This record gives sequence, structure tokens and C-alpha cells, in this order.
Amino acid sequence: MIISIIGGTDGLGKWFASFLKNRGYDVLVSGRDVIKGKEVEKELGVTYTNNNIDAAEKGDIVIISVPINVTESVIKEVAPHVKKGSLLMDITSIKERPAKLMAEFSKTGVFVLPTHPMFGPETPSLNRQVVILTPTEKEKTNPFFEKIKEFLEIEGAKVIVVSPKEHDKIMGVVQGLTHFVYISLGSTLKDLGIDIKESRNFASPIYELMINIIARIIGQNPYLYADIQMHNPQIKTIHETFIKNCENISEIVQNKDRDSFVENMKNSARHFGNETKRGLNCSNKAVYAISKETEKLIKSVGKEIGLKHIYSENVHYGILKEVYADNIVLKQNEKEVLLNISNVSLMEDKELEEWKIKNLEKYFVDISVLFKKDVDLNIILELLTHKFEIEVIDTYYGDKIDENDLSATFRISSYEKEDLKKLEETFNKIIENIGGKLRY
Amino acid sequence: MIISIIGGTDGLGKWFASFLKNRGYDVLVSGRDVIKGKEVEKELGVTYTNNNIDAAEKGDIVIISVPINVTESVIKEVAPHVKKGSLLMDITSIKERPAKLMAEFSKTGVFVLPTHPMFGPETPSLNRQVVILTPTEKEKTNPFFEKIKEFLEIEGAKVIVVSPKEHDKIMGVVQGLTHFVYISLGSTLKDLGIDIKESRNFASPIYELMINIIARIIGQNPYLYADIQMHNPQIKTIHETFIKNCENISEIVQNKDRDSFVENMKNSARHFGNETKRGLNCSNKAVYAISKETEKLIKSVGKEIGLKHIYSENVHYGILKEVYADNIVLKQNEKEVLLNISNVSLMEDKELEEWKIKNLEKYFVDISVLFKKDVDLNIILELLTHKFEIEVIDTYYGDKIDENDLSATFRISSYEKEDLKKLEETFNKIIENIGGKLRY
Repeated sequence: MIISIIGGTDGLGKWFASFLKNRGYDVLVSGRDVIKGKEVEKELGVTYTNNNIDAAEKGDIVIISVPINVTESVIKEVAPHVKKGSLLMDITSIKERPAKLMAEFSKTGVFVLPTHPMFGPETPSLNRQVVILTPTEKEKTNPFFEKIKEFLEIEGAKVIVVSPKEHDKIMGVVQGLTHFVYISLGSTLKDLGIDIKESRNFASPIYELMINIIARIIGQNPYLYADIQMHNPQIKTIHETFIKNCENISEIVQNKDRDSFVENMKNSARHFGNETKRGLNCSNKAVYAISKETEKLIKSVGKEIGLKHIYSENVHYGILKEVYADNIVLKQNEKEVLLNISNVSLMEDKELEEWKIKNLEKYFVDISVLFKKDVDLNIILELLTHKFEIEVIDTYYGDKIDENDLSATFRISSYEKEDLKKLEETFNKIIENIGGKLRY
Repeated sequence: MIISIIGGTDGLGKWFASFLKNRGYDVLVSGRDVIKGKEVEKELGVTYTNNNIDAAEKGDIVIISVPINVTESVIKEVAPHVKKGSLLMDITSIKERPAKLMAEFSKTGVFVLPTHPMFGPETPSLNRQVVILTPTEKEKTNPFFEKIKEFLEIEGAKVIVVSPKEHDKIMGVVQGLTHFVYISLGSTLKDLGIDIKESRNFASPIYELMINIIARIIGQNPYLYADIQMHNPQIKTIHETFIKNCENISEIVQNKDRDSFVENMKNSARHFGNETKRGLNCSNKAVYAISKETEKLIKSVGKEIGLKHIYSENVHYGILKEVYADNIVLKQNEKEVLLNISNVSLMEDKELEEWKIKNLEKYFVDISVLFKKDVDLNIILELLTHKFEIEVIDTYYGDKIDENDLSATFRISSYEKEDLKKLEETFNKIIENIGGKLRY
């Protein structure tokens, strides 16, 4: 079975190419850029062609994965060449128009499944990701449909099946309205001349959360956001409804019409129903995520911590000296490093321990001890594990020691060379008290 | 020194009454409701009067703490009665108008300090809370100003000093615009007939965050939100600027004018500057706060956990059986309890341990052991602490045992009665291996 991915040299198309190749399928990718295509061929072990029609003709499954603004023309180009009995899919984030065009331009006997994977190419697997399938009623009876759905679900994806129109309406809200409002807020704050950094001092957690979301959105690829707005047939109504609501509430405020204002909020809360309380609870967790981390940091002053850069994933490891405003002072090997809280996240103990094992040099000391022969070394070792990083590297009985004794050599390790002497002293003290004798 | 709080029987006024009383000041509160006043008098140990003017006359510091919509009339009522040399403050969340009225209606020689504490009455202390002071330039030279500022800072508050007008502008954005947008979004979703719960399935974390914030706001006291909108003189411009930006972007989208859309986003990102990246990082923490907790829960299946209800603070303690969708199945004493993730938060190990100590019944077994007399029991105990909840309740040397021995009685405790037998076996086994002898 050959899976052709039109636009499989980049973005989510490339992600699917890699994913399906790893699952053992023959993958054929097409794309305009030959240099990039050759690189992907080498990187993923798939086959590349710069001819979309060639790829369309060969595929048992043909997946169109191109930017929204060229989806229409690519469908018109490749759909007529998909062979009978094959499956034609697209993975664009709008569905009404591609669904219509794929049905219209493909031959009878080609099965069409318009799809919207709700994740980006940085996702490690399909596990817990949402994939929306938007087949027509007739297409739902095609065995391909059940197969794809099952395949996705076995991979851990959450599959939602809705009509293309319903999809576009809900996406017009979930993506379209959300982006629209935050983008409008971004330019409003600019127009009002608000100093964003300074405004954070006024410490309203919900305002800060809003600022953070605006920043998140306006910092992304604006072309993608333009296309999501401009290709959704439902977006006009959604914008208009929102603006009308803003105007209405603004007028209520100008008229100091308290009753209507209260009525409006109450009606919305009624519409949200149980989601009102749930949203409050969830937003609490979001709001306190940051302050909770700060609290934890403050409690860790003077202790050894690990901070992971949230993008580079680089780890800063050292003694936490100070936390003030948004800054963290970390002492790393005699020098002080200043980090911004928002750029790093505090590592859990376990995660830090794993990092240290991989990254830090370890020093050790070996100590031999005599025990009575009938002693269970595993029990001794387990008790000591809680105090030392320790292992038994050798045991011995025989000529050189008393016949009732057994000798065990322990290795105590530490990331800090200068700590070894103190660890050895503590170890010796313990050994004397639990029936062991040091052997020199 | 007498501190009078007009409206000190409720809300933040009552909070300050309690706070200042605890700091040793004589506090006099006034309020219309005599029954409530008498209760507060008893509860806080302050003095109550139902006569605002009486309170204003007696105070060396007079704090007006009444709802926004009656602040004007209360200022006009009490300001003329504040004695010379006293300090008159208000703590309303708008400042331009109260500042003007307090200056106008108080006698010459009364010092005026319009104030906005940025926190609610549920706050435990002033520590890390923001307090905004909005004195005129002349008032900044009054020694009262420095004293109040210092007092607040010693209590840990972050004090911001701005002009009343600047305050109202920034609050018009920080509170006014934020509330306005989310309230408008709430009624938009209602008008569009979006099923909120179902829409969450489409799993866009930023959309969900937005939904949660809308829910948080529309679920609060609508009268307070109405007043914040309606009493801020800057709000009209802010609404208009926002609506204009929405209309502008909507038009750009209708015209499929990609370049202008991109330009708009880029300009906003430029205005945000470094805050763009910072916001992205902070929003990541907010977005992942919930999924991170879910991950942690999934890893804890089969283990003992504590879940704290985020409002009632009730603790559910048991073995985690299953996590699915938004639900948690917990096995508590042979019966299964179903909880919603959004209503509870997972307790940290340490927090759970403290809860258990306070709330669960403990069972124990006492075991006496003979050691050589020169053994350091502290060392033995410390080793065992990592395996057992254990203490030494008695030590003995003397007639009944060998003169080279010492007897120690250990108490091992557990929340699970049926575990004691197994713990005792493990303990006995360890003791035999570390030079101890069980004494029956």
C-alpha cells in the first residue's frame, strides 16, 4: 500500500510522512522545492517526486497537505488523477470548501475523507491528540472510513466526526473568534499606548493572563492566522455577532443601565450552565500555575535546583540564591547566573536526578567492610541507599579473613568531589553501629 | 490614634478593620446595618457606630470603604467632618472623581490620600499585594504620605504611586477592557448557540483557556462589574478603541487583505516588544498547568493520593483507580468515588502527609530490641526512619539484661492496621542483620 502525501516535504505533511513511514507504510511525498524534497527523502527514507500528479496517481491513499490558500488549486490539480478505489484526504483546517471540491473533482469510485488534525508538527505522537473527520453521510458507510477511524484510535487519537459545515462553524469560534479577539486586543493596547511591561505591575492575574495570550498569538506566524480568518465561510457572521455584542454592552455602560448589564452577564452564565463553575475552577489552576511555581522557588532558596529553559530545554543547575520580581539568581560553580522566571521551569526532583545522572561527572570512594557471614547484604544496602548513592562492587570470603566473616566493598558516589570525605566519615560511623568492621 | 472606617462592617472595609485592630490600633467602624455592626464589633473587638459623621469626626485616619455607586455621596457626607490634621482616604477602585471630591469637600489642613488596594477581602495578608496610592503632587510632601507608604511596604505590600487620572486610564484597561471583552465574548457564544461543553472537545488549549476566563468573569457578582465599567471616566474611549480595532480587522478579513492583516499583527508584536516572548512563555505555563496535572494523575494510577476540593478544601484520600476524560475514580475504604478533575487539585506528598497526621487514625506496634551498649541509637533510628514511621519510646539498661547490652523499645506506626504485621516482620529481619536481638 502506497501513501502519497502532496506537500509532504514540510510542516504537518512531513510529520505524517515520518509517522506513516515508521508504521511500515510505503510513503511517497511531493512538493515544489526539489532540494528540500531530496533532503526529506534522505531524512525520512521516503520517496520524493516533484510531480503532484504522479504522486496522486500512485497513491492508494492520497493526503493533500498544503497551506489553506493553495488548497483549492491543489485539489483541482490532483483530485482527477486519484485512481478508483483509492482514498483522497485533505488535512486543511477548514472543511466545507475542500470537501465540496474533492467530491466534485475526483472520479466516481474514489473515496473522499476531509480531515482536520487539531495539532501541529511539534507533537510527538497521536496520543491524546484530536483528529476531526468530516465525511458525508454516504461516505460514512465506506469501509475506508471505519479503517481510518480505527487506525487513529488505536494510535491514541481522539476522533470527532462532524459535517464539514458544522466543523467550519465550530472552528470559526474555537480558532477564528479566539484569534480575532486577541489580535484586536493587541492592536487596541498599541493604539491606547499601554506600556505592557509596566501594566503588569498592576497585578491583576486575569489581565496578565489575557496579556500572555495576546502575546502568544501576535507572536506567531501571521500568514497562518490570516488564512484561518479569511478562508472560513462562517467567520463573517461570527465577527459581526461579536462586534454587535461589544456595541450593545458599551451602550449599556454609557447609559449606566445597570439592570441590563447584570441581565446580560446572568444570561451568559445561564447559557454556560455547569461550565461556569468548571471554567472558574480551571482558570484558577491556570492563574495559580505561575504564582505556585514562584512560591515553590522562594521555598527553595539555599537549595540545589534545576531550571529548564522552556524552549532550548537547556538545564541550569545550581544553588538558588535569590528570587526577586521576575528574576532568579542561581549560583553555578562559583559564578552567579541571572534568569527570568518566565523563561524557565523548575524541574521536579526526579527529573533533576535523571538529568544529573546523564550530565554531571561523578566521583566515588570505595570502602571495604567485614560483616558476619550470615548477614543479608541486600538489607544493609537498602538501608544505606536512603543516605548514600551506594552500591556493592565486590564481596569476598576466604583465606584472607576470618571464616565467620564476609567482606563487602561499597562504592559511594557523589557529584561533588569535596563531599566524599564527609560521606565516608558518615558511612564509617554507621557501619560501626550496625555490626560491621572497617577493613583496611 | 483612632482609625475610622466608613463602611467597615463588610468587604474590604471589614478586612482593614480586622487587619488594623490586629496591629494594635483603635478601630472605629460605621455602617448602616446595626445588626451587622454589632456582630462585627463582637467578632473583631472594634467599636461600631451607625453614624458615619460621628466616625469621621473621631478618626485620626478616616478610610471610606463603600461601594463605588455610593462613594460620591458618602464623601460629600463625611469629608466636611474630618478634623484638621487628620488623614482622609478612600479605597474605591476608581480614583479621579473621589480624589477631586475628597479635596473639595474636606477642610483645609486635612490630608487626602486616594488609595486603591488591588486585592479582595479573601486575601490572608498584605504580603505581595499591590496597593496603588494616587496623591496629588502637593500631597506627596505631606509626612502622612511617607508614613502610610512605609507602613504598607513593611507589611510586604508592593506600593505603586500614580496620579488619579493615570490610575483610571490604566485600570480602564487592566480591569475595564479585560472584563468588557470577556463579558462580550460570553454573550456572543450564547448568541451563536455554541454548546460550551461540547466545544471543549475540539481541544484547542487557548480556546479552552478563553472559555475558562469568560466563565470566571460571568460567574461573579455582576453589580460589581457593572460599577467598574460605569464609573470609570476613561472607559468610553477604551471601548471605542477596541470596537474600532475589531471593525478594522474584520474588514481586512472580509477584503482578504492578507498584507494588512499581517502588518497589524506585526505592529502589535512590535509594540509588545520583549513582552511578546515573555507572554508566550507565561501562557505556556498556564496552558500546561492543567495537562501537567492530568499527566501526573495518570502516572499515579494504583497509588495512594490526596485530592483537595478547590473550594471546600475537603480532602479525598484513597487509591487512584482510573483517570478518564475529566473524571477521577478514587477508591476510598472499599467504595469508589467519582470526582471531576476541574474541582480538585492533586496534593503534594508533603501536604498529604500533614493531612494524614491530622486526620487519620494511626495504629502501632511496640517492639523491644537488645543492642550492644556502645551502639548509637540515633544512627539506628535515622536509618530506619526511611523505611518505617518509627520512634524510640523507651530505653533500658540494668538488672534484667546483660550488662553489655541496652534495650530499646521501638514504636512502628501505620494508618493501615492490617499492614502492621508485615511491617513488624520487615523490622525484625532488618534488626537481625544490623546486630540487634529481639527481646521477648
